[in-house]
Amino acid sequence: MRLVLGSASPARLAVLRAAGVDPLVRVSGVDEDAVAASLIDPAPAELVSTLAAAKAEAVVDALNGDVPDAVVVGCDSMLAMADGRVVGKPGSAEVARERWARMAGSTGELLTGHVVLRLAGGKVVGRAAGTQVTTVRFGRPSDRELRAYLDSGEPLAVAGGFTLDGLGGWFVEGIDGDPSSVIGISLPLTRRLLAEVDVSVVDLW
Amino acid sequence: MRLVLGSASPARLAVLRAAGVDPLVRVSGVDEDAVAASLIDPAPAELVSTLAAAKAEAVVDALNGDVPDAVVVGCDSMLAMADGRVVGKPGSAEVARERWARMAGSTGELLTGHVVLRLAGGKVVGRAAGTQVTTVRFGRPSDRELRAYLDSGEPLAVAGGFTLDGLGGWFVEGIDGDPSSVIGISLPLTRRLLAEVDVSVVDLW
Repeated sequence: MRLVLGSASPARLAVLRAAGVDPLVRVSGVDEDAVAASLIDPAPAELVSTLAAAKAEAVVDALNGDVPDAVVVGCDSMLAMADGRVVGKPGSAEVARERWARMAGSTGELLTGHVVLRLAGGKVVGRAAGTQVTTVRFGRPSDRELRAYLDSGEPLAVAGGFTLDGLGGWFVEGIDGDPSSVIGISLPLTRRLLAEVDVSVVDLW
Repeated sequence: MRLVLGSASPARLAVLRAAGVDPLVRVSGVDEDAVAASLIDPAPAELVSTLAAAKAEAVVDALNGDVPDAVVVGCDSMLAMADGRVVGKPGSAEVARERWARMAGSTGELLTGHVVLRLAGGKVVGRAAGTQVTTVRFGRPSDRELRAYLDSGEPLAVAGGFTLDGLGGWFVEGIDGDPSSVIGISLPLTRRLLAEVDVSVVDLW
């Protein structure tokens, strides 16, 4: 039994590896903007669960039977900011700076949607899905600290424009929820979803 | 300015490295049992803060001026279990199994004491201390999962007999507090303590 991670995120891969699972990585190539645009005024949880499903399904299609017995995991993360906006990767230092101006000293909800598809003999024989919502309490980096953080480039390519597992860890005062979900894949939720499709996480260690 | 970590914990070192700081490591050699025994019925926070101070001070003594301009950080972690016991490393699979029998499905408080000593010209010119308390909600590993986790050896050498940053991450449903404090050194608290002795964390990146 092999876990196939449908994500290019190095953070998700690192979470799984630290937790004893060395997945195959298959990037889905899903057009996330197009999927998101197909939803009419989606709730944040609907958005991340739809994107997670699209990624997992695209990976199953691309595998085309190559790994007949496997579990394919798709994930998608977004930050619901205190002002109601739901945001992904900032992409530029400008956008990240503007977000941090609102996030500093505030809280947000980091949502990570998960879809697990179990393959047997190359066919999908089981499906489980769930979304973890974790509250993040942001610190207040000084102007100098924020400049150094943005200059590092780290926050530009991650959901919400912050990291818990890198330089950003200095600027997150705390969380209420599951830290691995904030990094990008919830270990306890994935364990429960695997159990729903009759796979024990121990079989993947 | 160099950060000196007074701890042999690979988890603390990994937290700092992931957060952009490559510390010097100096193991204090403090007799933790003797320090703990010198306290009369200590509250959990007093225990970890006293041990953190003893470690930081022992490292300053051992440095003996070798690193004249530095911040020395001592930490100590304990788990206050729901039944009132305050525990460190289980040391054996037997003890870890007995703890998990009580911890599973329950919560505990992971306390990490921190003491920061600033050295200038080899002398201590500043001191800051604080303790982070984080609530941990334990999952319920199956018998088979728990056996595999104990067999890995991972939980034996860590405070409370669980890890958040390894295989144990599958069995922690969530936390309320700072995840880095659970791993062994709180990044946001350390940032505040460094600021108290006039050091910005950015200067250590």
